[in-house]
Parts: sequence; C-alpha cells; structure tokens
Amino acid sequence: MNKPYVIGVDMGGTNTAFGVVDARGTILFRGQISTTDYNNGEEYANALGIAINELIMQNSLQDKIKGIGMGVPNGNMNDGTIEKAANIPWAKTVVVPLAQLITNITGLPCKLTNDANAAALGEMAYGEAKGMKDFIVITLGTGLGSGIVANGQLVVGHDGFAGELGHSTLVRNNGRLCGCGRTGCLETYASATGVARTAREFLELNPDEESLLRGIIYRPLTSKDVYLAAEKGDKMALRIFDFTARMLGQALCDFITFSSPQAIILFGGLAHAGKYLLEPLKKEIDDHILNVFEGKTKILVSRLNDAEAAILGASALAWE
Amino acid sequence: MNKPYVIGVDMGGTNTAFGVVDARGTILFRGQISTTDYNNGEEYANALGIAINELIMQNSLQDKIKGIGMGVPNGNMNDGTIEKAANIPWAKTVVVPLAQLITNITGLPCKLTNDANAAALGEMAYGEAKGMKDFIVITLGTGLGSGIVANGQLVVGHDGFAGELGHSTLVRNNGRLCGCGRTGCLETYASATGVARTAREFLELNPDEESLLRGIIYRPLTSKDVYLAAEKGDKMALRIFDFTARMLGQALCDFITFSSPQAIILFGGLAHAGKYLLEPLKKEIDDHILNVFEGKTKILVSRLNDAEAAILGASALAWE
Repeated sequence: MNKPYVIGVDMGGTNTAFGVVDARGTILFRGQISTTDYNNGEEYANALGIAINELIMQNSLQDKIKGIGMGVPNGNMNDGTIEKAANIPWAKTVVVPLAQLITNITGLPCKLTNDANAAALGEMAYGEAKGMKDFIVITLGTGLGSGIVANGQLVVGHDGFAGELGHSTLVRNNGRLCGCGRTGCLETYASATGVARTAREFLELNPDEESLLRGIIYRPLTSKDVYLAAEKGDKMALRIFDFTARMLGQALCDFITFSSPQAIILFGGLAHAGKYLLEPLKKEIDDHILNVFEGKTKILVSRLNDAEAAILGASALAWE
Repeated sequence: MNKPYVIGVDMGGTNTAFGVVDARGTILFRGQISTTDYNNGEEYANALGIAINELIMQNSLQDKIKGIGMGVPNGNMNDGTIEKAANIPWAKTVVVPLAQLITNITGLPCKLTNDANAAALGEMAYGEAKGMKDFIVITLGTGLGSGIVANGQLVVGHDGFAGELGHSTLVRNNGRLCGCGRTGCLETYASATGVARTAREFLELNPDEESLLRGIIYRPLTSKDVYLAAEKGDKMALRIFDFTARMLGQALCDFITFSSPQAIILFGGLAHAGKYLLEPLKKEIDDHILNVFEGKTKILVSRLNDAEAAILGASALAWE
C-alpha cells in the first residue's frame, strides 16, 4: 500500500515539535509536547508516542504514514539511541533506546539522528541539495553543527557520531577555550557565540576605535548586534564578519580537501548575515583552496524556512 | 560463470607492474611494462592492454578474470581517467580516458583510482580493514596520501578527487612551504620528506646539541637516517619522531572528528618507524581527541607486504 506521508520530530531543549510531512516537504499537521517534564526516557517516549498516535487518528492517517524520523541532541543513528545529552534532564547520564520505544508505542518504524544530520537529509529531500550525492551542511547557531553526505549517504561513522566539524581544531596555539574543554575549536570562532566573542575581543583590542557596538553596555553583545551595526556601515562590525568568514573559509578548505563536496550549504541565523559573511567567505576559499578543487564547490545558503527546517530535516530520515 | 581472479595494475612513475590476484590476496602471475616510453596515452594503453592479454593467455586464464583495477597518479574514479599527472610525461597536460582504453583492448571491465584509494580498498579486501565500513588509510611516503572509506564505500567526492588529507592545513601561521604552492600542509610535517625537513630544522636550531645526525654531511639527510639514529638512542632523532607524531596526531584528531572511523591504518616506509612514531602518536590522540571519540578509533599499521600492496590494492577495485 502506498504510504504518502512521514512524521518529523524535532526535539528541542524545551519543547518537542512534530508534524506530518508529504513528499514535497509540506508540513500538513503539527503537534507539540514538553521535552523535559518527565522522570525518564520511557515517560518521554510514552508521551510523545501517544501524542503522535492522536495526531494520526485525528486526521485519519492510519496506514498512510511510512515512518517517523527524529532529530535529537546526541542522537546515535546506528543504534537509534539518545546518549548522554547534557541538556535533556532525563538523558543526561544514560543511553535511552528512543527509536525502539517510539516504535513500540506507534507501531511505526522510527529512526533518529542529531539535528545537523537531520538538516543535511532535509536539504537532500526538499532543499538545495536535491539530486546531490556529496555535500556538507554547516549549521551556524549558538555552536557550529555539521551533517556530511558522501555517496548519497550520511557519514555517521562507526559509532554514529561522525561530523563534529564544530570541534575541528582551527587555531592550534593560544586558541579560544571551547565548551568541549579543548581550545581553538572552529565553533569558538564561526558561530553566533563566536561572532560575539570576536566583537568583545575587537572592542578591547582597539580601545580608541569608534564603533556602534560600544553603545551596547546594559546587556551582552550578540551576533545580531554586529549584523545591525554592519548594516549601518560600522567598520568594526564589517571587520568582525570578515574575520569570522576568514576563519570559517580556512576550515571549509580543509573539509573540501577531505570529501570534495559538490556544495557546502550554510544554515541557521548567522547564515543570513548575507554578503557580510558570504562574500569574504567565498574569497577566502578561492584564495586558499588546493588547486585541484578550485572553483568546484558551491557555497550556498539554505532556503528552507527556519521555523520548519528542523521538522522537515527529521522527517527526511523516514523516507530512507 | 565463476570468475575467480582479478588483475591489479600499479602505475608507478617509471614502471607499471601488474598481476593476477585471487580472492585471498595472493598474486599468482605478474607482468611489467615501462610507464614512460610512449608518445601518448593511447600508446601506453595499447602496450599495457596487450601485455595483460598475453599474461592471460600464457596462463590459460581466458574467461577467469572478473576485471581490472588500476592505481594511477591523479586517477579519477568517477570518470575512469588520469588527469594532468605531473610525473607521467604523456599525461602531464591532458585527461586520458585510460579505463575505457584498457577495456577496449582487453574486453574486461576496468576501474581506476589513485594509489591511496587503492591502498584503502586493498586493506578492506585483504588487510587490516577486513569487515570494517568506516576507516582511513594514511600512506606515509615521500608525501602523505589518504584513502577514506565511509559506509563501506570509498569517499571520492563529486569530482573523484576527495581525500587529499596531506594537504590539510596543519599550521596556519608561518607554516612550511608545500609542493602544492600553499603553506602549512600536513605532508610537509608528516611524511618521509617532512621528517628530513624537521631534522634539518632541529640541527640548525640547536647548534650546540650533539647528534648522530650531524655526521651526515656528504648527502642529504633522509627519514631513514633519523630512524637509524633513533635506534641508537640519539636524543634529537627521538625528538624528531616525537614532533612528527604530535603533528600527525593533531591532524588525525580532526579527521576522526570528521568521519569517526573505526581505525586509521598507517601504510608506507615511515609507518615502519614503529614505536618511535606510534607511541607518541597514540598519546597525542588520547590527549587531544574530542570526548565523544575517546578511545574509539584504533591506530594500526598495515601488514600488507610493501612490495605487493600496490598491486593488491588496485586489484581490490575489480572485485567491487
């Protein structure tokens, strides 16, 4: 029997949103539950499974759903587990066989992976990477996540956790301290947080230079402040984006050297910094890339709707 | 009909060696021609095709050969071509459809890839990577080559040239000049040439330190000299291997972050420096690896016979 829909689940730190998705990437019906209000993974899975069953029944979709795909923090695609996810209270210290638990309750096949891998599958199913077999999605949010596709398949590695490109070491000496406990990681430079750190550093190192960014004193500087200042032609703000783009560009050159992707697709808030980031980024890549790869890899910005992309990406896992 | 053999072809800069290989990785019959004595790619292909046909007929193997696999410099697996290979006179400036030419003459399916990718397939078919789906082979010769396998398939990228890990930028400021025209590439540190460069640098920077390496003055220092000095307990030689291992280890940490391989297999002359390289290498990885990957990736040394590995690796392509 033809099953025309899949379900995508986006597990955030606070809420879990899910939706019924068709083959074109339209979200037809939606639901939501809390992520955190449970004593353990079984209770969470139970609540989510029941909410999914209700959404299916309310809309008479019994026998029309091919499967469920989930994007979850520290999701292990090989095992269908969520493993020691620091921000999820009931998964902080344990390994929960979430995909199996959801299948038990819904009777539907369920796969899961992390958010960035889900984003990559979303681009392949509905977005910029349609028809591509080799590409990388870089998500520029609070941190830097990545989903790598080679030969048409997600690269998840032998343990299910490959693609931690935010933790490539970009600066080997005197690099910035990263949340992972190491120093010099790419995401300490190329992420929303990284841009704010660069701004604070530039302000401190250039005490005599005027900048709109000096006006922000009652709350922490954000990457959005830098963007708004750049829009007004603020020179320091433009230099901050230049610096960020240069750091990211150098890292992308190494990633291209590894898997020679047809495209690298940028996703997330910072990707919308547009020309301030994209132009110096492309220039840095052109200047530094190994000869054999020159001009071959497209640098694109995702066109999936930010609010929908997480559900769409997760749902793509269920078509596989 | 059951075809129990394949042919592996190793195109070197001077000679091209080939052999008939069985499923266990035994080379049963061999042949050889010059690589360079031709005016163009057609002439080379013709000579090689005829030599292969002769080897088949001499040994009554008609209808027993499944196909031909070739390891060639600048080989493009996607297209079956050899592209602008600087060291091959007849392929210096052109793209030659070598696989197709060989098929035309032999009537056998033919695939080709570069040496390092062939080495990876060889490890998967006959060596340390048997049964693995995610691993990386690093060849430590004059330069540093790499063959990457993810999900059981070679990662060759959209253009067929992925896996140039020797040209990952390891040192971003004041890095060593590389043959590729850029600076700081991994292979300028971690390769036989890199070890010799480090030796010259250490000798110059420590003019008062005694070392057996100072005795070599009538010819250029080699990595083998450093190995022999290390065997005699020379402190500078040991520090040179330490330094090399540390540089390579930092790069391997980034590669693990990318594709989370079950093993990284070292191949080639320098890989035989044994404990001088391997122990500090493993320590560097343990010290620097991202938490989630700690202790997961094995660092192995290839056990394929150096003299046979190139033919075996190429032959593995023909089983696919």
